[in-house]
Amino acid sequence: MIQQATETEIAVRSTDVDSDGHVNNARYYEYCEQGRLAHLARLGIIRREPRHVPYHGLFTIVETRCRYLLPLYYGDRVVVRTTTVAVGRSSFRLRYELLRGGEKVAEGESVQVWLGEDGRSAPLPEPVRETLVLSLAEPPADAPAAEPEEQG
Amino acid sequence: MIQQATETEIAVRSTDVDSDGHVNNARYYEYCEQGRLAHLARLGIIRREPRHVPYHGLFTIVETRCRYLLPLYYGDRVVVRTTTVAVGRSSFRLRYELLRGGEKVAEGESVQVWLGEDGRSAPLPEPVRETLVLSLAEPPADAPAAEPEEQG
Amino acid sequence: MIQQATETEIAVRSTDVDSDGHVNNARYYEYCEQGRLAHLARLGIIRREPRHVPYHGLFTIVETRCRYLLPLYYGDRVVVRTTTVAVGRSSFRLRYELLRGGEKVAEGESVQVWLGEDGRSAPLPEPVRETLVLSLAEPPADAPAAEPEEQG
Amino acid sequence: MIQQATETEIAVRSTDVDSDGHVNNARYYEYCEQGRLAHLARLGIIRREPRHVPYHGLFTIVETRCRYLLPLYYGDRVVVRTTTVAVGRSSFRLRYELLRGGEKVAEGESVQVWLGEDGRSAPLPEPVRETLVLSLAEPPADAPAAEPEEQG
Repeated sequence: MIQQATETEIAVRSTDVDSDGHVNNARYYEYCEQGRLAHLARLGIIRREPRHVPYHGLFTIVETRCRYLLPLYYGDRVVVRTTTVAVGRSSFRLRYELLRGGEKVAEGESVQVWLGEDGRSAPLPEPVRETLVLSLAEPPADAPAAEPEEQG
Repeated sequence: MIQQATETEIAVRSTDVDSDGHVNNARYYEYCEQGRLAHLARLGIIRREPRHVPYHGLFTIVETRCRYLLPLYYGDRVVVRTTTVAVGRSSFRLRYELLRGGEKVAEGESVQVWLGEDGRSAPLPEPVRETLVLSLAEPPADAPAAEPEEQG
Repeated sequence: MIQQATETEIAVRSTDVDSDGHVNNARYYEYCEQGRLAHLARLGIIRREPRHVPYHGLFTIVETRCRYLLPLYYGDRVVVRTTTVAVGRSSFRLRYELLRGGEKVAEGESVQVWLGEDGRSAPLPEPVRETLVLSLAEPPADAPAAEPEEQG
Repeated sequence: MIQQATETEIAVRSTDVDSDGHVNNARYYEYCEQGRLAHLARLGIIRREPRHVPYHGLFTIVETRCRYLLPLYYGDRVVVRTTTVAVGRSSFRLRYELLRGGEKVAEGESVQVWLGEDGRSAPLPEPVRETLVLSLAEPPADAPAAEPEEQG
C-alpha cells in the first residue's frame, strides 16, 4: 500500500477572481489540474522532467466535474487533496477535495483515458495499472460501481 | 413556448491553449459561462446592463461538469448551444453543447441555485421560474428524473 | 507596398473581467497576442497550419508594453489593429491599437527577436526582413528613432 | 526609512504555460499584480480586508511594461520583488523584478494613477504620498528623470 492522497497547496491569485469578487468556477479546474499533476508525478506515472508539464501525450481527460460548497477568495490558500478512486482497463478516475483551513470548499473528479502511440485510447500499461490500483483510496472490492463508464 | 436554445460563438484564442497544444480542459467552462450568460440574458432572467457581467448576486453555481469528445485548437470557432434542462424549487440546470462546424466536441452542464437578499439559497421568483419552465428543451413531463439533486 | 494594418476582432469574455468589474490589465496582452498572430500569419511570416498556434520556435518576445486609456467591459467588442513599426537586424517591433467602436482604448507594443536553430537570437531571414520592411506602417526614413534598442 | 522591497512568491501553474511550453508573456503581468497588491498592502496604502482584492476604486493602472530575459516553466517558483521607483502628484511607479533561484528572469513596471471619488484622476492623498516617498527604492534626488510622464 502506498500513501493514498497527494496534497498540493494553491495560493489564490487576484486574477483568479471574477467580477463577483470570488474565484471563478472555471479556475477550480485549474486547481484540480495542479493536484492531478502532482499526484501522478508522485506516483511515478508521469515523469517529473524539469521544465515540462509532465503528462502530455500519455493520457487525455474525457470528463471533469466539480461541486462548489463555499466561495474562495483572493489570498486564500487552498489544499487540493487528490486521490485515485477507480481504475479501469484503459481509464482511471481521480477525486479532488479542495480544503481551506481544513474545511472542504469544493470537490471534483476527473476521468482520464490512456493513449496509445497512435493517439487513441489504449489499455493502461500494466505497471501504471498496478501503481494506480495500489494508490486507490479505498479497496476496489468496496467500490464496484465506481468503474468509470467511459471505458470499454 | 419560447425559442429553446441560445447559440453563442466563441473564437478560441492562442492563450486558451496549453502545452499539450489544444484548449485546456478548464477553458471549456469559460466557454460554457459565455453561453450561460447569453442564454439567461436572452430569457430576460438576468439584466443586460451595459458594461456589467450580468448575474452577480442573483444566483450561485453549485455544480458544473463537462465531457470532452474532441480536442479544440487555436483558431477554432465554437458554438455553445445552451438549453434549460431542469427547473426546481430554488435551482435550475443548464446544458451546453459545444459544436465546431456542426460537430459536437464537448457537452457540459451546470446547476445554479437562486440567492435571496441574505445571500442564501431561496425559491426561484415566480416569473423567473415560469420563464425557465417555458424555455425547457423538453417538456418537464418527459423528464421527471432531470430534477436537480441539489434542491430541497 | 502591402496592406499595413491587420485588424482582429476580440469579444470580451466575462472571464476576462476581474473583481474591479473591468478587463484585467494582463488580458490586454492576450488580446495583443491575437493581433500579433493574425498579423504575422497574414504577412506569411508564420505558417497558418490548421490547429497549431503558429509562431512557436521562430521568435521570442523580449519586451511588451501597454498604455491603458479607457476601461474595457464584458460584452465589448475590441478591434486590435496591428502594425509593424520597426525592423532591425534580428528583431522587429509591432504596435497594437485597441479600438472599441472606433475609439482607442489602449495601445501596446511588443519586440520580437528571431531565433536560430540553436534557440538563440539570429538575424532575420532575408525574406522575412523584406516582408516586414514592406509592411512598415511608416517608411523607415521617417522613423529613425524607432529602431528597437534590443537589437545588436 | 521603511523596508523598500516586497517579495512575493508565485508558483508557476501548468495552466500558465502556453503551447510554446513556457509561461505565456501575458502571465508575467498577473505575477506582477500579485507583487503590486502585496507591496501596497504591506505599505498600508491598500487595506488588507479578508476576502477582498484590496485596491479597487483607489487607483487605476495606466501603463505596464515587461522585459523578458529568460523563459519560465511549469513548477518554477518565482519571487516578485516589488519596489516603488517614482512618486508624482497623482501617480506613482512600481518596478518588479522576477527572480528564479536568485536569477533575474524578467523585469516590469507599472504606473498607477490615483482616483478621486468621482472616478477621475486626483492628487495622491498626503499620507499615501508620504508613505510612497518613504518606500522609494532610491532617494528621489538620484532619480529626477524617473518622474512618470503620466502625471500633471
